[in-house]
Amino acid sequence: MTAPVNAELSASLDAARQDYAALLDKKLKLDLTRGKPSAQQVSLADALLALPGDEFKAADGTDTRNYGGQQGLPELRAIFAEALQVPASQLLALGNSSLELMHDAVVFAQMYQLPGGQRRWSNEERIAFLCPVPGYDRHFTICERFGIEMIPVPMTADGPDVAEVERLVAADPGIKGIWCVPKYSNPDGTTYSDETVRRLATMQTAADDFRIFWDNAYAVHHLTDEEVQVGDILAACAEAGNPDRAFIFGSTSKITLAGAGVAFFGSSEANVKWMLHCAAARTIGPDKINHLRHALFLKDYDGVRAHMRKHRELIGPKFDAVLRIFDEQLKDIATWSHPKGGYFITLNVPDGCAKEIVRKAAEAGIALTPAGSTHPYMDDPEDRVIRIAPTFPSLADIEEAIAGVATCVRLVAYQKLTS
Amino acid sequence: MTAPVNAELSASLDAARQDYAALLDKKLKLDLTRGKPSAQQVSLADALLALPGDEFKAADGTDTRNYGGQQGLPELRAIFAEALQVPASQLLALGNSSLELMHDAVVFAQMYQLPGGQRRWSNEERIAFLCPVPGYDRHFTICERFGIEMIPVPMTADGPDVAEVERLVAADPGIKGIWCVPKYSNPDGTTYSDETVRRLATMQTAADDFRIFWDNAYAVHHLTDEEVQVGDILAACAEAGNPDRAFIFGSTSKITLAGAGVAFFGSSEANVKWMLHCAAARTIGPDKINHLRHALFLKDYDGVRAHMRKHRELIGPKFDAVLRIFDEQLKDIATWSHPKGGYFITLNVPDGCAKEIVRKAAEAGIALTPAGSTHPYMDDPEDRVIRIAPTFPSLADIEEAIAGVATCVRLVAYQKLTS
Repeated sequence: MTAPVNAELSASLDAARQDYAALLDKKLKLDLTRGKPSAQQVSLADALLALPGDEFKAADGTDTRNYGGQQGLPELRAIFAEALQVPASQLLALGNSSLELMHDAVVFAQMYQLPGGQRRWSNEERIAFLCPVPGYDRHFTICERFGIEMIPVPMTADGPDVAEVERLVAADPGIKGIWCVPKYSNPDGTTYSDETVRRLATMQTAADDFRIFWDNAYAVHHLTDEEVQVGDILAACAEAGNPDRAFIFGSTSKITLAGAGVAFFGSSEANVKWMLHCAAARTIGPDKINHLRHALFLKDYDGVRAHMRKHRELIGPKFDAVLRIFDEQLKDIATWSHPKGGYFITLNVPDGCAKEIVRKAAEAGIALTPAGSTHPYMDDPEDRVIRIAPTFPSLADIEEAIAGVATCVRLVAYQKLTS
Repeated sequence: MTAPVNAELSASLDAARQDYAALLDKKLKLDLTRGKPSAQQVSLADALLALPGDEFKAADGTDTRNYGGQQGLPELRAIFAEALQVPASQLLALGNSSLELMHDAVVFAQMYQLPGGQRRWSNEERIAFLCPVPGYDRHFTICERFGIEMIPVPMTADGPDVAEVERLVAADPGIKGIWCVPKYSNPDGTTYSDETVRRLATMQTAADDFRIFWDNAYAVHHLTDEEVQVGDILAACAEAGNPDRAFIFGSTSKITLAGAGVAFFGSSEANVKWMLHCAAARTIGPDKINHLRHALFLKDYDGVRAHMRKHRELIGPKFDAVLRIFDEQLKDIATWSHPKGGYFITLNVPDGCAKEIVRKAAEAGIALTPAGSTHPYMDDPEDRVIRIAPTFPSLADIEEAIAGVATCVRLVAYQKLTS
């Protein structure tokens, strides 16, 4: 049985089919899959390539060339303390990837009892994490690898549906964590409201070793003059009498060099001590020369902010182009996020269309993040969310690719509406 | 009851007491605890501090500043393939610490089923590792942290007592690994004989996922013109039909910069694939710029060898001084290793004296690696082995410190012999 089709829809489908045929003829080869900085962006930090130069002593006289210094270079920790809202004394500067630190925190929690916990997670019958959706696929992969059950929670304009979070964590002692990208979230650009931050910090949890994995990946990655602030989760947790609740992660991967940046872990004194104890069996210390290199290059928090304004100059026009093209072409059939920072735009297409749109785009040579990636187990139940990553390609390529994506959206949506 | 004391011993004790009193008066503050390069040694690689300079493209055109490249930079892997006896295609260049890689290999084996295994180690009732003694304390710490039982096996002049190793691994399916420092071993400088390597590769193991943790930390760290070779364990395992048996580790920590070097993992294709699968949930890739920096600096394997000769010029005299002072002062009461490479000298004192000697040295301001550190659970049953790490202090300090250690050995040994 087919639904009645009106003439207007039918004309729209015909137009989309023609546009898609023309798109195929272009034989594009464009990649919008990952949140990767462009060559121009990483070039902004090219001065790092010749640093530290003649210098190898830290401010406290430490020879950065030798072993030791598990906490990382103090002057670099000081620079990022304000950005990540963690006192420098509780902030560790470590390797080149915050994903590593999140992964290892989950691994360590399985191997070593957390502060406040009764046993190691590996000795629990069941471990679950709350996963605000849409969210970041690499968070979900960590859970999936270690058999941690993922419970989706819908994102709202204020962050995860906090009433639902409160209800779940209060009732279920198996829920040990929640993944959060609190500012300019991946993929929809949402910043958690102060109320959300406060309730996450104060809520009752059935688990006594519940942890908020606060992946502040886009802390300084503004796209507007507003420089949006997010509530201070560490302070809020401490005030609420839950000082050990938040693990805070950040990195310079999308500030300086994506492959050769510095990652940070911050938390309560007890959690930092726990992390250092776990790490002591693993390493004699992080690459302090890379820390020194970054400290010399960025200088201070204002230096970080000034550097991020240069990124905005490069990527702002790309985000604007995506939004403009969507606005021109998709107003009647899709919605999308309008991020004030971060690396992504979420495109919400008609239910049941996302997979097919991604497939059609791939056929036209436009690689998109696989539909479903924004959800645990790759399962977007409405098959609706497509993550757009506009930073890496050139502006001209973005324009071409997004026009192509819009064509695919119209084609698939009108096919569905007329079927 | 006291044993009869002859006059000679009594005079020796009196002399040692006087020397120790004079030693205390010097109020020394010297540290021989860790195998740490000196400032002069790390300075040999100061050119790295301004590299890669204007360069950021790898030989294959890859932009090293951006994400990706899980296996590490091909040109750096090629440089270390010969040194570590692993085909470049099976050698990964990763972070700044081989200890991390060993730790993570043990962790991953608990979380992910190894090639050839039937289940993850965490699902086994019991896991044990063979620990040749004397050995490296950080290996033992990894086992201890994860509840892996450690079974000591005595070292011989040819490596671990291989008949004992064969007997143990054939009988006990719980034995999943053995720690090996095959060349210039930590702490006694032994290089495994070809026969030992062959038998480790060919022996029958009750466990089907047994792994040799081949920590080739001193592969190019020669102290003589001989440049000792060790058998190719990976080839030997493959020939014996046990291709997945060996995990090979190495790093440039004691070649270039101790805090900012590059670590390597090499193994069979199946093991490398397994390692990359495990690592893929953890990281988007290692610091390729540090790889490029190292490749530009070291150039090729001959460059590595030439660089190591400069280290030998700096540390050879320190090792010579230790051996000379021991020879002058301890010939009648102790024995010690005569390493042809590596970072340590093992001092074997009379049974039951090591802890007391380390204590006496500490009182005199000379910090030694704690007695027992060379054995699992810090338990040297004969209380006999002291590890001497002569690289970090200046030659003058080494001479002063080792003369002090010799005094402590004589004091404690003669006290024991006359008690």
